[in-house]
Amino acid sequence: MPAPKDPIERLVAELSKLPGIGRKTATRLAFHILKEEAEYAGALARALTEAKERVGFCEKCFNYAVDPLCPVCSSAKRDPAIICVVEQVPDLMALESAGGFRGLYHVLHGVLSPLDSVGPEKLRIAELMRRLDSGEVREVILATGTGVEGEATALYLAEEIRSRDIAVSRIAYGVPIGGELEYIDRATLTRALEGRTRIG
Amino acid sequence: MPAPKDPIERLVAELSKLPGIGRKTATRLAFHILKEEAEYAGALARALTEAKERVGFCEKCFNYAVDPLCPVCSSAKRDPAIICVVEQVPDLMALESAGGFRGLYHVLHGVLSPLDSVGPEKLRIAELMRRLDSGEVREVILATGTGVEGEATALYLAEEIRSRDIAVSRIAYGVPIGGELEYIDRATLTRALEGRTRIG
Repeated sequence: MPAPKDPIERLVAELSKLPGIGRKTATRLAFHILKEEAEYAGALARALTEAKERVGFCEKCFNYAVDPLCPVCSSAKRDPAIICVVEQVPDLMALESAGGFRGLYHVLHGVLSPLDSVGPEKLRIAELMRRLDSGEVREVILATGTGVEGEATALYLAEEIRSRDIAVSRIAYGVPIGGELEYIDRATLTRALEGRTRIG
Repeated sequence: MPAPKDPIERLVAELSKLPGIGRKTATRLAFHILKEEAEYAGALARALTEAKERVGFCEKCFNYAVDPLCPVCSSAKRDPAIICVVEQVPDLMALESAGGFRGLYHVLHGVLSPLDSVGPEKLRIAELMRRLDSGEVREVILATGTGVEGEATALYLAEEIRSRDIAVSRIAYGVPIGGELEYIDRATLTRALEGRTRIG
């Protein structure tokens, strides 16, 4: 489909490409932007261009980064002996905003998915193994998702790491804090029972 | 609040200013944009800049327009004797996409709202009256909203137009086509009864 010639139509078309933004919402956003003072459209346009130009990947953990290393990897306060492996950058950010984790991360940028021909070579797995071979890592926490592909990726990584002298763990899945059992889905409840821990 | 220095943070901050886009959605959009090929961010940035630079108001009806006249006003197929008055451009677009109206429009760009100090001089009412004084208009259809302000604006305009030899009508409000009475709100039902038309 060629880009529409009308500037409003083109703006709507570009906004519609964003996830979760349909044509109707895109139109509403476009009209809002047209109604705003001229500075807003310019500021958003600059923010877009600059984010795309300046943001690259952390060369250690593949988080987004402006500098060669991301803020987590370049912090002296983090423990390089523990690496938490996540699928995507937003997972890393969610864990960071929870605030309890003091180790480093490794972002795979995907999960193993044979159906979509995503094999290990398409993820940042070789880079993870090189980090583990450096010798300073004692534990790897696998925080890939609970879907079939996230589980398969965690199993694959556990298998790959096995030959090394490194502890491998999986984050706990179960009933969310504040969640009432009555409203929790069956898969989560099953997982919560399987993952029970002794307290007495 | 000064603009954040981090390009991702700044993109999230700018996207959060859009209506209906909270911080969480803005973050999701920003990450999507970072993940897309570089062309997308550039295309969206250009679409924003160009829409803001090239789109102005139709000098006749105050629809958005790239040229001095909007496509509706410059069409030879439209009847300049009928003007439909709407609050905002999206109202005009909704009527246009319905497709049945062959007259022209006039966009007020707001409604009378004494509480927000929006008097007649802040809307495109003087411009509407000048169009009516040109002599080619036979009917004005008032399609402002059903809220208190939309109604007050319609009443005000009807009063202003009264001295001229021009028919003034209000679009019909009532039960939407396909709507089941059982699920329609009371205000709409009251309006539908008041606006009943004889069929036999």
